[in-house]
Amino acid sequence: MAQIGFIGLGRMGGNMVARIKRDSDHEVVAFDFDVKAVGNATKKGAVGAKSLADLVKKLDAPRTVWIMVPAGDPTQETVDKLAKLLDKGDTIVDGGNSKWTDDMARAKVLKKQGINYVDVGTSGGVWGLEVGYCMMVGGPNVAIKRLAPFLDILAPPPDEEHGPGWGHMGPTGSGHYVKMVHNGIEYGMMQAYAEGFGLFEASEFELDNAKIAHLWMRGSVVRSWLCELAANAFEQEGNDLAALEPVVAESGEGRWTVEDAVEKRIPLPVITAALFTRYETQSRGDFAAKVNAALRAQFGGHAVQRRADG
Amino acid sequence: MAQIGFIGLGRMGGNMVARIKRDSDHEVVAFDFDVKAVGNATKKGAVGAKSLADLVKKLDAPRTVWIMVPAGDPTQETVDKLAKLLDKGDTIVDGGNSKWTDDMARAKVLKKQGINYVDVGTSGGVWGLEVGYCMMVGGPNVAIKRLAPFLDILAPPPDEEHGPGWGHMGPTGSGHYVKMVHNGIEYGMMQAYAEGFGLFEASEFELDNAKIAHLWMRGSVVRSWLCELAANAFEQEGNDLAALEPVVAESGEGRWTVEDAVEKRIPLPVITAALFTRYETQSRGDFAAKVNAALRAQFGGHAVQRRADG
Repeated sequence: MAQIGFIGLGRMGGNMVARIKRDSDHEVVAFDFDVKAVGNATKKGAVGAKSLADLVKKLDAPRTVWIMVPAGDPTQETVDKLAKLLDKGDTIVDGGNSKWTDDMARAKVLKKQGINYVDVGTSGGVWGLEVGYCMMVGGPNVAIKRLAPFLDILAPPPDEEHGPGWGHMGPTGSGHYVKMVHNGIEYGMMQAYAEGFGLFEASEFELDNAKIAHLWMRGSVVRSWLCELAANAFEQEGNDLAALEPVVAESGEGRWTVEDAVEKRIPLPVITAALFTRYETQSRGDFAAKVNAALRAQFGGHAVQRRADG
Repeated sequence: MAQIGFIGLGRMGGNMVARIKRDSDHEVVAFDFDVKAVGNATKKGAVGAKSLADLVKKLDAPRTVWIMVPAGDPTQETVDKLAKLLDKGDTIVDGGNSKWTDDMARAKVLKKQGINYVDVGTSGGVWGLEVGYCMMVGGPNVAIKRLAPFLDILAPPPDEEHGPGWGHMGPTGSGHYVKMVHNGIEYGMMQAYAEGFGLFEASEFELDNAKIAHLWMRGSVVRSWLCELAANAFEQEGNDLAALEPVVAESGEGRWTVEDAVEKRIPLPVITAALFTRYETQSRGDFAAKVNAALRAQFGGHAVQRRADG
């Protein structure tokens, strides 16, 4: 039996605590600013904490505390507060979507206090509770060794062909770095499928998108989990996805991947096109389109479309 | 027991005949200009034919003849010769990589003779013998119904979640059309993975590409058959693929996908970027690069790199 503290009991953190308690006898001390979320975690078998200080008090040293809150300020603030409460030899784990350079900066600060820092890039989304989370881990061996019993439970069970569902990628930041690039690849793959089905929608053949996505799962080169999700989506939303708006959000990793590629001068044509296409869907290319239309009008007298209120 | 003629016993056709004879008691009459290939097929249990005429003579009407030869002229010539030998009610199946517009033109000509034409887009490559071929089928119901016992054997067995491993997409041309777009998506997915690993290669972390590809198979969003093949490739060729030249060929389908998108005015940023990146790897962008360098020199006096013999 091992022990861990868990901060952030939202969709991801809450499911992770549930998976640990369901599949092991490990002890979890759980905290969230939302008291209800703490209540849910205690129903799953976790020990509830009333504050960060209470959580730290309820853990035996050397402590391991897993933070699962939104990247950026919420994570940084939690790390800063925790650092004041923890002792030398304790470990902070960031399981969220932090940028790897933030990891490196944090680890440097915490090292002065003798606190270990581990970055865990987590893929699998809402399906993780069921199939397990794919986890890319960066940081010092000693802390990761202590964390391993939890990674073993959170990940899908080891597989004869592919090995375990979590891996130690390298030093601090490498876990989130590999996860970030994973998401860049994900953007490219998603847009590739999207464009293919976009052609089908415009086709003279009346094609059945769900049927095609299911068929491609049976031995085709493009079979993948995303293809499976495409089949689900067409079944649930219909062949023409009529109820959806054509807008795609992004949450940072794809952008950081492109930024890193520019910094390193490595060409990333497909991932960049996928990212920029998302910005087009968000109408962030609209002013450029107006400029383009205005230029056509200037040199060729081509008609422009004017807004009704313009 | 059903009966079929098979023309073209190369890597794909030969394996297909082998799979049919291994997994069913269907009769296959097999022909290839390479006598050795016919010998191999007879060893698997097929009846050998000495010529197209001999193959047609050995089949009972209504006949079904599967052509598995390279797309373009070889397929067209085989169709033309066969059409002279076949009777009304017979069926020609093109299982190769024909362009869907060629299918439509052929079907129109053959229809005047009362010969059915079925287009089968086949994915799965050299792995098809083992796991089965994913087949996208276009053409008239009557001919496809007669072909179904063979499609059932050639495809992976039906699956509770995704159904059968072959599907009737629609009228003539729709099978090859769906297969073509499948390949366009494949180009985009492959380039997305390629770019991600390209970043890893340039990373300050010393990352293990095979380990990462294996890890991603365990619950990540990008798990796919291509990701599995990436793990194989890094294991076989090493982390830096040192022995490979950075050149990627293409065989038509990606190009046709982009042509079709331009014709239909549907944006295809990722698939087009993936296709054009392949042309860059083939040095087909070299003259543009020279022009670009020359222009930099013209306006800014920036140094150009000159060929040793230039």
